[in-house]
Amino acid sequence: MKKKYIMSPGPVEVPPSVLSVGGLPMIHHRTPEFRKALAEVLEGLKYVFQTKNDILIFPAAGTGGMESAVINMVSPGDKVLVAACGQFGERWAKIAETFGVSVVKVFAEWGDEVDCAKVEAELKKDPGIKAVFTTLSETSTGIENNIKKLGEITGKTKAVFIVDAVSGMGAVEFRTDEWNVDVAVVGAQKGLMIPPGIAMVTLSEKAKKAMTESKIPKYYFSYEQALKALSKDKLPDTPYTSSVSLILQLRESIRLIKEEGLENVWKRHARIASAVRMGVKALGLKPFAGGKPSNAVTSVWAPEGIDGDAVNKKIRDDYGITMAGGQGKMKGKMFRIGHLGYVDMFDAVIALAAVEMALTELGVKITLGAGVKAVEEELLKK
Amino acid sequence: MKKKYIMSPGPVEVPPSVLSVGGLPMIHHRTPEFRKALAEVLEGLKYVFQTKNDILIFPAAGTGGMESAVINMVSPGDKVLVAACGQFGERWAKIAETFGVSVVKVFAEWGDEVDCAKVEAELKKDPGIKAVFTTLSETSTGIENNIKKLGEITGKTKAVFIVDAVSGMGAVEFRTDEWNVDVAVVGAQKGLMIPPGIAMVTLSEKAKKAMTESKIPKYYFSYEQALKALSKDKLPDTPYTSSVSLILQLRESIRLIKEEGLENVWKRHARIASAVRMGVKALGLKPFAGGKPSNAVTSVWAPEGIDGDAVNKKIRDDYGITMAGGQGKMKGKMFRIGHLGYVDMFDAVIALAAVEMALTELGVKITLGAGVKAVEEELLKK
Repeated sequence: MKKKYIMSPGPVEVPPSVLSVGGLPMIHHRTPEFRKALAEVLEGLKYVFQTKNDILIFPAAGTGGMESAVINMVSPGDKVLVAACGQFGERWAKIAETFGVSVVKVFAEWGDEVDCAKVEAELKKDPGIKAVFTTLSETSTGIENNIKKLGEITGKTKAVFIVDAVSGMGAVEFRTDEWNVDVAVVGAQKGLMIPPGIAMVTLSEKAKKAMTESKIPKYYFSYEQALKALSKDKLPDTPYTSSVSLILQLRESIRLIKEEGLENVWKRHARIASAVRMGVKALGLKPFAGGKPSNAVTSVWAPEGIDGDAVNKKIRDDYGITMAGGQGKMKGKMFRIGHLGYVDMFDAVIALAAVEMALTELGVKITLGAGVKAVEEELLKK
Repeated sequence: MKKKYIMSPGPVEVPPSVLSVGGLPMIHHRTPEFRKALAEVLEGLKYVFQTKNDILIFPAAGTGGMESAVINMVSPGDKVLVAACGQFGERWAKIAETFGVSVVKVFAEWGDEVDCAKVEAELKKDPGIKAVFTTLSETSTGIENNIKKLGEITGKTKAVFIVDAVSGMGAVEFRTDEWNVDVAVVGAQKGLMIPPGIAMVTLSEKAKKAMTESKIPKYYFSYEQALKALSKDKLPDTPYTSSVSLILQLRESIRLIKEEGLENVWKRHARIASAVRMGVKALGLKPFAGGKPSNAVTSVWAPEGIDGDAVNKKIRDDYGITMAGGQGKMKGKMFRIGHLGYVDMFDAVIALAAVEMALTELGVKITLGAGVKAVEEELLKK
C-alpha cells in the first residue's frame, strides 16, 4: 500500500475526474458527437493559450509538435535563429539542421535565461532571418524565458516567432496573441494535465503566410491539410484519426482550468513554486536557475560529493515519488522537482520532506524539517 | 438510455478491462515501472505480429506510421512500387511522392484485390525498385490482399516489403516473418482494441539495412534514434515521451489476445465476418468486394437509388450504431460494417437487424429478419 506521487516536470499527475474520462467507452472520431467535443476543446484551448488563432492538434509527442513547426514554417537553406538555454531549446537547432535549415545560435549557458539583447542584435544584423525559435519554460534547467520581450523584438521583424510552450502552458503566464507568438507548441502531459500523446500548435496569420512559402516536404504534419480539415464544415475535423480518449480527457481538464480561472492557475503555480524554492534554500541547497526560475520546475544543484541521480533514485525507489535528475550534460549534477498541473500546497510539503529525508539517508548534513518549515511559512503568506 | 455501438472499421469498441486501465493513475515514462510495462508490451506484440524483429512504437495516427516507413526506408529519387486497391493503398503513393520518391503504380480497381502477377512483372522489369508498399486489409473497399504471395515475390528481390497492416493486424491472419514482411505498420484502434493514438512498426534486418541508406531527413520518426533508445540498456525506452496510458491499455489488450490465442482470434473474426456476409447476401444486397473480402470489414453497395451515407446516417443517428459510409470516390455509393477487435456473434445479429430496419425505413423492399436468419444459420455451423 505504497502511495505514489509524480513530481516530475511532466508527465504530471492526472486529476481524478480526468482519469475517469479515460475509462469511458470509445466514440468514433468522425461522428458529430466527437467533433462537437473537439470544437469544445479547441474553444477551451483558445482561452488557455490566450489566443484567437486557429489551433491544430496532432497525435504525437511534444517533439513531434516541435518538428511540425520547423517543417511548416521554413524551407531548406533558410536562416533561422534559435534562442536556447538548455536541452529543449537546443533541440530546436537540431531539428532545424536536420531539415537543411541554417541556424544562428544564441545559446545561453545552462542555468541562465535567453539573452534578449543578443537576439535583438542578431536580428538587426541579419534581416533575412525567417524564424525565431525559443522555449517558454526550459525543463532541463528550470528557467523561464521572457517571451513577452522576445515577442516584442521579433514582432518588429519579418521572422515568425515560434515558442516551445510544451512544458509551461497552463502553468505559467503565457499570452499567445498579446505577446506576438506566431506558433506556440504545446504538450498534453504538463500544464494541461492529461496523459501524454498529443501535441498542439497555434497559428497566427503571419505563421499561415510562412506556411504557404515553406518548401520542406510534409505529409502527416502538414498544417495546410490540418487547416483544411478544421474548417471543412460547421464542426472541426482532423485529416487522420484523432486521439479520441486524450481529446475527451482534455475537455475535462480544460473544464477544471476554466473553473479555477486561468490567472488563478498561474497564481497557484507561482505560490507552490515559491514555497518549494524557499524550502530548498532553507536546507542550504543551491538553486540551479541563475535567471528567472520557472514556476513549473525547480532545479537544484546536488550537494558537494553527492550524485544528483542518487537523490532522485532514492526518492523514487524508496519513497515512491518520481522527481527528475539532470539531463544531458547536467546528468548526475542536479535533481529537479516538478510542480505543475495538478499540484497543491501539500505537494510542496511532501517534496521537501522527501528531499530532507533522502539527503539525510545519503549522509548530507541538513536540518530535518527546516525545508518544510520554510514551505509552510511561505504558504501562510497572503 | 440509448445503447451505443461502434461497428466501424476502426476505432473499435474497447473491451471493459482495457477501458478500466485508462482510468488508472499516470506513471512516468522514464521509470523502471513503465519501461518494464513497455518491455512486456513489445514482447506481446511480437506474438501478435508473429515476428522476432524489433518493434518501434510512436505516438501518432496510423498515417504517421505510414509516413515513418517511407521516410526511413527510401531516398528522394528512388523508385518504389505501390500495390494498391483503394484509398489507403493509394495513400502510400501520395506519401512517397511528397518526399520526392518515384512511384510505379500497380493500382487495382476499387473492389478488386492487388494483382500479384502484375507486381511480379513490374519487379522483373525494373530490378532497381527499392521498396514495395501494399495494404493488408483495405478498409475503404473491404478487400484483403494476399500478403503471403506478395512477400514471396518481393522476397526474391532487393526491395523491402512494407505492409500497411493498420486495419488488419490482430483480426486476420498475418505472419510478419514467415511472409517476408520487412516493415509492418500497425495501428492501435483496430485489432489491438485500444483508443487511437499510437502507431507501431516492425523492422527486419533487410529493413534496417535500407534504413542506413535512406537520405530523407527525419527527426521525430527516426528509426535509428528509436532503435538506439530501444536497446540502450536492459529495458526498452523511447527517444521522446511515450503515450503512457495507451501503452498500459495495450498491455491489457495483448493479455486478452494471448488468453484467447491468436489463431482463435483470427477464427472468431472469420466466423463473424462470414455471418455478416451471409446476412447481407440474404437481404439481396450486393457485396462491394470483388476479390477476397476482408474479415475486418464488409463493404456493401447501397441499393439502387439509395444514398449509402443515408443508410449510415440513419443507423448512427437513429439507432446509435456507428458504421461507415463510402470513402473517396465511393462516397454515397456504399456502406461498410466493421467487425474487428472486440466483436462477438451478437454484434453480427445487431448489425444485420440495424441494416434491415434502416433499409425498410428508407423505403427499400427487403424481408425483415431475413438477414438475421442467415446470420444465425451461419453462426450455428460448426
